[in-house]
Amino acid sequence: MSSLLRVVYRSNVSLSTDHISSAVILAKRHMNLVNLTRRYSQSVCGNLTKMRIVQFKTENDPTVRVGVIKGDTVIDINAGDKSLPNTLVGILQQEGALETIKKLAAKSVKHHLVDEVKLVSPITNPDKVLGVALNFKDFADKVGAPYPKEPIVFSKFPSVIVGPYDNVPKGTASNAIDWEGELVAVIGRKAKNVKASEALDYVFGYTATQDLTAKDWISRSGGQLIMCKNMDGFSPIGPCVVTKEELGDPHKIRIRTWVNGVLKQNGNTENMICRIDKIVEYLSSAMTLLPGDVICTGTPYGVGSNQNPPQYLQEGDLLETEVENVGKLSNRIINVPKK
Amino acid sequence: MSSLLRVVYRSNVSLSTDHISSAVILAKRHMNLVNLTRRYSQSVCGNLTKMRIVQFKTENDPTVRVGVIKGDTVIDINAGDKSLPNTLVGILQQEGALETIKKLAAKSVKHHLVDEVKLVSPITNPDKVLGVALNFKDFADKVGAPYPKEPIVFSKFPSVIVGPYDNVPKGTASNAIDWEGELVAVIGRKAKNVKASEALDYVFGYTATQDLTAKDWISRSGGQLIMCKNMDGFSPIGPCVVTKEELGDPHKIRIRTWVNGVLKQNGNTENMICRIDKIVEYLSSAMTLLPGDVICTGTPYGVGSNQNPPQYLQEGDLLETEVENVGKLSNRIINVPKK
Repeated sequence: MSSLLRVVYRSNVSLSTDHISSAVILAKRHMNLVNLTRRYSQSVCGNLTKMRIVQFKTENDPTVRVGVIKGDTVIDINAGDKSLPNTLVGILQQEGALETIKKLAAKSVKHHLVDEVKLVSPITNPDKVLGVALNFKDFADKVGAPYPKEPIVFSKFPSVIVGPYDNVPKGTASNAIDWEGELVAVIGRKAKNVKASEALDYVFGYTATQDLTAKDWISRSGGQLIMCKNMDGFSPIGPCVVTKEELGDPHKIRIRTWVNGVLKQNGNTENMICRIDKIVEYLSSAMTLLPGDVICTGTPYGVGSNQNPPQYLQEGDLLETEVENVGKLSNRIINVPKK
Repeated sequence: MSSLLRVVYRSNVSLSTDHISSAVILAKRHMNLVNLTRRYSQSVCGNLTKMRIVQFKTENDPTVRVGVIKGDTVIDINAGDKSLPNTLVGILQQEGALETIKKLAAKSVKHHLVDEVKLVSPITNPDKVLGVALNFKDFADKVGAPYPKEPIVFSKFPSVIVGPYDNVPKGTASNAIDWEGELVAVIGRKAKNVKASEALDYVFGYTATQDLTAKDWISRSGGQLIMCKNMDGFSPIGPCVVTKEELGDPHKIRIRTWVNGVLKQNGNTENMICRIDKIVEYLSSAMTLLPGDVICTGTPYGVGSNQNPPQYLQEGDLLETEVENVGKLSNRIINVPKK
């Protein structure tokens, strides 16, 4: 199978006449990932606290496994210890998760070419997928909304998580599916009543998401953001979780979103209204955050409802989201039958 | 160990001088369960579609197992098939779950006295814990609120689920923890775009909950009902899941809540504003309901904020909730250190 076809195979894009051209874009996306992995290979080798962790399947084995990116390859972490949980959330629930991953990455002899695996979401079945609405100054300023006094918190269900290159079904419930590219914090250890000054110690690392939202449902259900946030496939996450050391300052991260190659969002986490340390403090003042919980930290200006006229995702659209130092999501909107 | 002491042991109530008297109440609660199991033992034996399913641990084995109540005993379902998932949610994810449980209940030879096990929540780690706010006519009428035009949907995280007799920590985040006794629908199979006329076919059975809510957080977080609903222990569920045949008409079920033995809520699901079939239709029009998902269907008048003056749960309070044809929850509010 050619490299190009393998990319198409992995992305579950059917080769209809409508979609054949997407293979070129997917290949480009794929090269982007390869370039990113090359860029970071030195840091993986040179400093073992810096890690890019993925979850993957292979063509021959549908079981999800945890891996670490090294150059053009994925090191199979589970191959080094059969008793290890085969999800990152599971590993994070154990003591010394980072050390375990480091140790197994160094000793595992089972490698795959990135080109030959299917990357799924690096986080699957967490206890919580939390989100913060209206959390960017540029967004609030441009729509004339006052900054919220405290975080507006909503949640997504684990079952709406999909992989970084998975298709998202348009479905029939919404005609206003909007994109919201975001940086995501991944909790590394149990957090309750944590002060902002120590909150980032409880973060294991970061990933990226598209916090897809049905804008025509946003004021329904008494204004509760559950229905509008939880349609099938509304939470693409990935392509990897980077350790906090790998990411750098989480409040200086560029977030960009393209729809069919046109740049729509070009923001930076420096514009967050409630910063990540304060979000963790706020959440943990009421609830207990658990290892593997993810917090979607808000989206910059440039979503579909900000366009003039508003623009929403349609069948066939290619949605790409790049979060600096994390990587790029690439999700195509597809049609699905009603039931 | 005496039966009374065993009850105390199972309920994790420390025998301080403040709490010693609670043993009598717990013993009474326990007898209530035994009476309920006696009452239903005939239906379990006589008609195998009628089932009362529990999850339990024993003193010697901390692993949760699935059981069926028969008379004064719990039949260990997992003992009959080692390959079966050891959670009800796991079993519901398989084809023919009810038939599997029926078959194993008939053939399993491993029984425990109800008196000698610890019942945990019959539902653990579902994908979704959904709730509907302001869903009872008597409640809305008495507080002068208009009936919502469509369900006001919120969610709880799996980690806030506790067992039917577990303690609930008061914590430090709220001084207005309120009780909300509710009937809970348990989804039996994947439901997407389901019509109300067939919606109850997708319900496996029913259980009971206390949808505990921090009323001093209800208008915080931009009015989103996440923070106020998700403090530790805020979702006691149980004591069992009854099949829909066992429950009877879900819209003719009495719900009662007592605080320290004083009757506070005395309602009936006939007063639901949005009935369960319509709730399932509404939810499934946007999201995919999965086996094991639970829907808390709303609470009747008589919660703490309805009292004059308002009354909220305090350390030491005993909260009891009986949902007709399901059983009784009994949860004590305890103090816990800040961190």
